Amino acid sequence: MVCRSNYKQVKNNGYQLESCTWGKQVFIPDNVVGSIEEASELHESYDYVIVTTKTHSSDKLVQDIKPVISQKTCIVLIQNGLELEVPYINQYPNNSVISVITFVGVHQVESGHLEHFLPFKMNFGNGRHSEESYLPQDLSNIANFESIIVDSEIKYVVTDQMRMVSWHKVQFNGTLAVIAVLSGGLTLQELLTTPHTRELADRAISEVQGVAKKLMGKGFPSWLPAVEVHHNQMINNPVPYKPSMLIDFEKGLPLEYESTLGNIVRIATELDYPVPICRTNYALLKQIDIKNVTKTRV
Amino acid sequence: MVCRSNYKQVKNNGYQLESCTWGKQVFIPDNVVGSIEEASELHESYDYVIVTTKTHSSDKLVQDIKPVISQKTCIVLIQNGLELEVPYINQYPNNSVISVITFVGVHQVESGHLEHFLPFKMNFGNGRHSEESYLPQDLSNIANFESIIVDSEIKYVVTDQMRMVSWHKVQFNGTLAVIAVLSGGLTLQELLTTPHTRELADRAISEVQGVAKKLMGKGFPSWLPAVEVHHNQMINNPVPYKPSMLIDFEKGLPLEYESTLGNIVRIATELDYPVPICRTNYALLKQIDIKNVTKTRV
Repeated sequence: MVCRSNYKQVKNNGYQLESCTWGKQVFIPDNVVGSIEEASELHESYDYVIVTTKTHSSDKLVQDIKPVISQKTCIVLIQNGLELEVPYINQYPNNSVISVITFVGVHQVESGHLEHFLPFKMNFGNGRHSEESYLPQDLSNIANFESIIVDSEIKYVVTDQMRMVSWHKVQFNGTLAVIAVLSGGLTLQELLTTPHTRELADRAISEVQGVAKKLMGKGFPSWLPAVEVHHNQMINNPVPYKPSMLIDFEKGLPLEYESTLGNIVRIATELDYPVPICRTNYALLKQIDIKNVTKTRV
Repeated sequence: MVCRSNYKQVKNNGYQLESCTWGKQVFIPDNVVGSIEEASELHESYDYVIVTTKTHSSDKLVQDIKPVISQKTCIVLIQNGLELEVPYINQYPNNSVISVITFVGVHQVESGHLEHFLPFKMNFGNGRHSEESYLPQDLSNIANFESIIVDSEIKYVVTDQMRMVSWHKVQFNGTLAVIAVLSGGLTLQELLTTPHTRELADRAISEVQGVAKKLMGKGFPSWLPAVEVHHNQMINNPVPYKPSMLIDFEKGLPLEYESTLGNIVRIATELDYPVPICRTNYALLKQIDIKNVTKTRV
């Protein structure tokens, strides 16, 4: 496991976990290293390289992981956003790629200390897909990946509709998290129970659904939760839920929105589909992000 | 003159003025009082009562000025927004009302100390207008009001198109000031020279122009400055220009947006004219305002 800011803590003590699913636990990884370079110096041959960073560093990361990618390595992307697979497919044309979209409420409240307050749900499948079709790859990696998690308490679905799933997710994280930041810092409970922000969120979500439908020719499959179900889960969450983008904002960290909101706006523009609310949120957030990060650096 | 927070300073020393038009001056009002009530106790009969407050206190003010309104008093509204005249017309059906829209760059940098950095421009005329037509009133008040300012350095136009003029103004102060706040605090120069915020502003302005055109059946008359002219004036302003809404926001004061942006959205809704950007800005700003004012009061 590559740890950066929490390296010392995790190396020495593992992860302290307080989880709604697994209770109070300590998780000690087999090995903790401080960088990808250090991982490559172990001269192991990795079956899976799991990428779980924020997406604003993706371009660099695609290059950085080169030393740990061997012929047999399967790249697993557990990130938020649309079309994240493309640079990996281009860079590693002969490696398997698995796309994973998760719903999980977990925050690192202090270095190496994780609070996990929403059950883990995971959809995954072939990540080597283009706009129209899936590219051939060794699907045994997907079955193997499933065999690793099958006995955990993680709810998961293996699906060949990962594009649908990623659009289904960005309808929430390209709207709610953004509005939470732009409206001065709202928990999702506040956002979804305040009439004017709730209405704004639902209009924004409709825009995203419209783009997805125009792009893929159909609406979301019924096995993915409806908007109302998602909202109610957020509203009824036992603790106030701040989206991680809001937490990053409050810490003065760069915000992850190009892969979600930015891609929604770009794809909508290509399709000539109007998304004025998303476009407004995007321009405002971009400027807020620039100001916020600059302020922190000064 | 009714002064509130700056009462002591102005009562004792007048206004210290540093003006791009009138230079360094001290202006001593004939009389300074601390409240409307105190003004009424002077038992003067006022020719003009000039209302220059922020509009978020308008409902109360319409009632509060009662003691200083006699049969001959003309009410002069120098404020930002749409349809501000309506409650005054309803409350004082026999009094003259003059609507005034000004462009003036002036900030009270400390109590009683005014910095004036953009030339004063003023359009005024019959304020007793409904959506369709002007109501009869004694127009001599308008001529008298003009005679008071005719020898000043103020550029002014007397017009029977005050509805047009007020819409022309809100196309800027219902958009630029709002975006300046929502995007984390931008001067107008920054806002208008940053591509993504400039594009957003121009799209929002187009929405307002669309509503105005649908409501009044025609575009703005050519004697009112074009958007490009306005923008260039702001960009080339010798000092960084923060909209007063941004200054209020930074001080934790309530923001003036219902009379501008709020009315744009409400009228657009009545006309079934789409204003998704204004609507988004409105919902976000409303929430920011609630949060900001609450924070200040705690």
